[in-house]
Amino acid sequence: MHLTAAVRYELIKECTRTSARAGILHTPHGSFETPIFMPVGTQATVKTMTPEEVRELGAGIILSNTYHLYLRPGSDLVREAGGLHKFMNWPHGILTDSGGFQVFSLGPLRKITEEGVRFKSHIDGSEHFFTPEKSIQIQMDLGADIIMAFDECPPYPAEREYAQKSLEMTTRWAKRCRAAHTREDQALFAITQGGMYADLRKESAARLVELDFPGYGIGGLSVGEPKPLMYEMLDATVPELPKNKARYLMGVGSPDCLWEGVERGVDMFDCVLPTRVARNGLAFTSHGKVVIRNAEHARDFERLDPECSCYTCRHYSRAYLRHLYKAEEILVYRLLTIHNLHMLLNLMRNIRQSILENRFQEAKKAFFDKYGEEKGQ
Amino acid sequence: MHLTAAVRYELIKECTRTSARAGILHTPHGSFETPIFMPVGTQATVKTMTPEEVRELGAGIILSNTYHLYLRPGSDLVREAGGLHKFMNWPHGILTDSGGFQVFSLGPLRKITEEGVRFKSHIDGSEHFFTPEKSIQIQMDLGADIIMAFDECPPYPAEREYAQKSLEMTTRWAKRCRAAHTREDQALFAITQGGMYADLRKESAARLVELDFPGYGIGGLSVGEPKPLMYEMLDATVPELPKNKARYLMGVGSPDCLWEGVERGVDMFDCVLPTRVARNGLAFTSHGKVVIRNAEHARDFERLDPECSCYTCRHYSRAYLRHLYKAEEILVYRLLTIHNLHMLLNLMRNIRQSILENRFQEAKKAFFDKYGEEKGQ
Repeated sequence: MHLTAAVRYELIKECTRTSARAGILHTPHGSFETPIFMPVGTQATVKTMTPEEVRELGAGIILSNTYHLYLRPGSDLVREAGGLHKFMNWPHGILTDSGGFQVFSLGPLRKITEEGVRFKSHIDGSEHFFTPEKSIQIQMDLGADIIMAFDECPPYPAEREYAQKSLEMTTRWAKRCRAAHTREDQALFAITQGGMYADLRKESAARLVELDFPGYGIGGLSVGEPKPLMYEMLDATVPELPKNKARYLMGVGSPDCLWEGVERGVDMFDCVLPTRVARNGLAFTSHGKVVIRNAEHARDFERLDPECSCYTCRHYSRAYLRHLYKAEEILVYRLLTIHNLHMLLNLMRNIRQSILENRFQEAKKAFFDKYGEEKGQ
Repeated sequence: MHLTAAVRYELIKECTRTSARAGILHTPHGSFETPIFMPVGTQATVKTMTPEEVRELGAGIILSNTYHLYLRPGSDLVREAGGLHKFMNWPHGILTDSGGFQVFSLGPLRKITEEGVRFKSHIDGSEHFFTPEKSIQIQMDLGADIIMAFDECPPYPAEREYAQKSLEMTTRWAKRCRAAHTREDQALFAITQGGMYADLRKESAARLVELDFPGYGIGGLSVGEPKPLMYEMLDATVPELPKNKARYLMGVGSPDCLWEGVERGVDMFDCVLPTRVARNGLAFTSHGKVVIRNAEHARDFERLDPECSCYTCRHYSRAYLRHLYKAEEILVYRLLTIHNLHMLLNLMRNIRQSILENRFQEAKKAFFDKYGEEKGQ
């Protein structure tokens, strides 16, 4: 038996009217309540934040990127430093992606074969070759608690034939990843694909479940498709996944998608959205989005979100935040990142509580009544 | 009697062999031990830092810039927000400069007459006119504890005749400033000038002391002259200033200059240096300067400064800091700012302690034996 029990999903409570569920994810670096949102620390730092601040907001696991860390500073260097947890001063959970999505995103800079993906670095144009084995080696060097199988992510839109062939290769790659993975203090999750074809989604999930991984990513979504189509693909995928394993919707994290994902049985999410838009001056609030640079906030001495208890909202006015933004002061990127992460992490806590109290749907409706609907993707 | 007792300098201990002295500066927002280094928060934020972090490092007073805040967000807006302390969430001491040095620094963008200075905004090119009265009005709107008289700062080098005329105008402007100043919860400090002419320095100080201000800035230094010349000018100026008033050497803050300034009787310093160089990857350590981007640090898993107890040194390696710097991650600007401010604020505490224990000169020698000498400016 090759699988380790490094990471275990414990189901605590299922919603009686939806597929939403509350659980606990046990890892070598702590146990974390699900559903969970994982802030993204692409280059071994959640942008603008110290690890202590991220933890204080309630984050349990963060995501870091294999592709980026492989290129800089190098996974060998991180291994020498004692692994990613120590290198970046984050003693809690870490998940690394496989690099599959990043090299896919390079577009013309990469070439995919059965063996792996040849690509050029976005930093210096140097040529590299990722195989399933290489991705696993890098992720073992980094030492995250959860690592992801190297997958191929079809573009949107993709022909059915492409999606079919791609999911088959992703399945073969998942097997190669497992064969290459030897660290017993990490769990290797597989990634389901299948493009935007419900039956292929089902097939991908079924074939990977047969291989019995300790957790499953749902990949290839939020790649340009309309949100209803993404939800359809979730509806096709999640019922195929075992109840006693964690389900992770990759790269998704807007407030509306978190609700919709949890409703369909997803346990884990990650997304650069809250941190990236913060640096562009956009805040998620209980009443929808706020663009802080707008002139209407120039003399608005109220807090960003009257219902928010985060550090930013407790201490600063919209007028001050707007001033900092116009003056391009680093502090504003920090303050908006704190606010947005707090908003999403707090949202996840509230969602979980509503599941425990069997009022998920009412909580969802109450949220959107205030927040407003979001259209499109 | 127009002078207020808003700010008072209390002399605690004089060094028996040098002019160094330890004291306490009492302000409406707290009492702070001197000699003191004031971090600079040009645009109502100490770059990259929260106010709580600045305070935790031991800072008591920060400096903010009249010229910058007048242009953006506007001093009327800051007044509406309840003043600068409230606007920026800093309930401790604040000193604002007068804008004199900033408009001087604009070079060809400004024109000086007896009435005041006409200048163009560095932000949008719009035309503005600062007079002593205008500078005081803005500073009253901002509401700092200590405000500075509007002065004219001669360039380096400057002809004697220019320096003479300039100090005379600065004296007349100081009188106009005082006449315009009506807030009793602020203290207005005068600024001594005199170029690089010892007798003019003495004259400027004597004429302003005659007017009996509650404190004295020493301006027009660190403007390009060699350091020994700056020290000469301090030697000429400080003995003219009264013992029961604070002496503030404006815009100076490298470790060596702090020692030399304190030795000559200076109580207060401010400088963008520690925060600015931090953002360029330069750290002050007990063993001299460290340029973090250098390749030698790539696999150096030791702390930045083995003798430092700051947050950065306790939690991160040089290798990690270098990685963040190469990756242009905001966290590194924070971590190096924390370190550099800690280094200077801690240095000032140690200097003060050495004065109290009458071992200033030994402490100075011990510091430079490790830190190394700095040449020129």
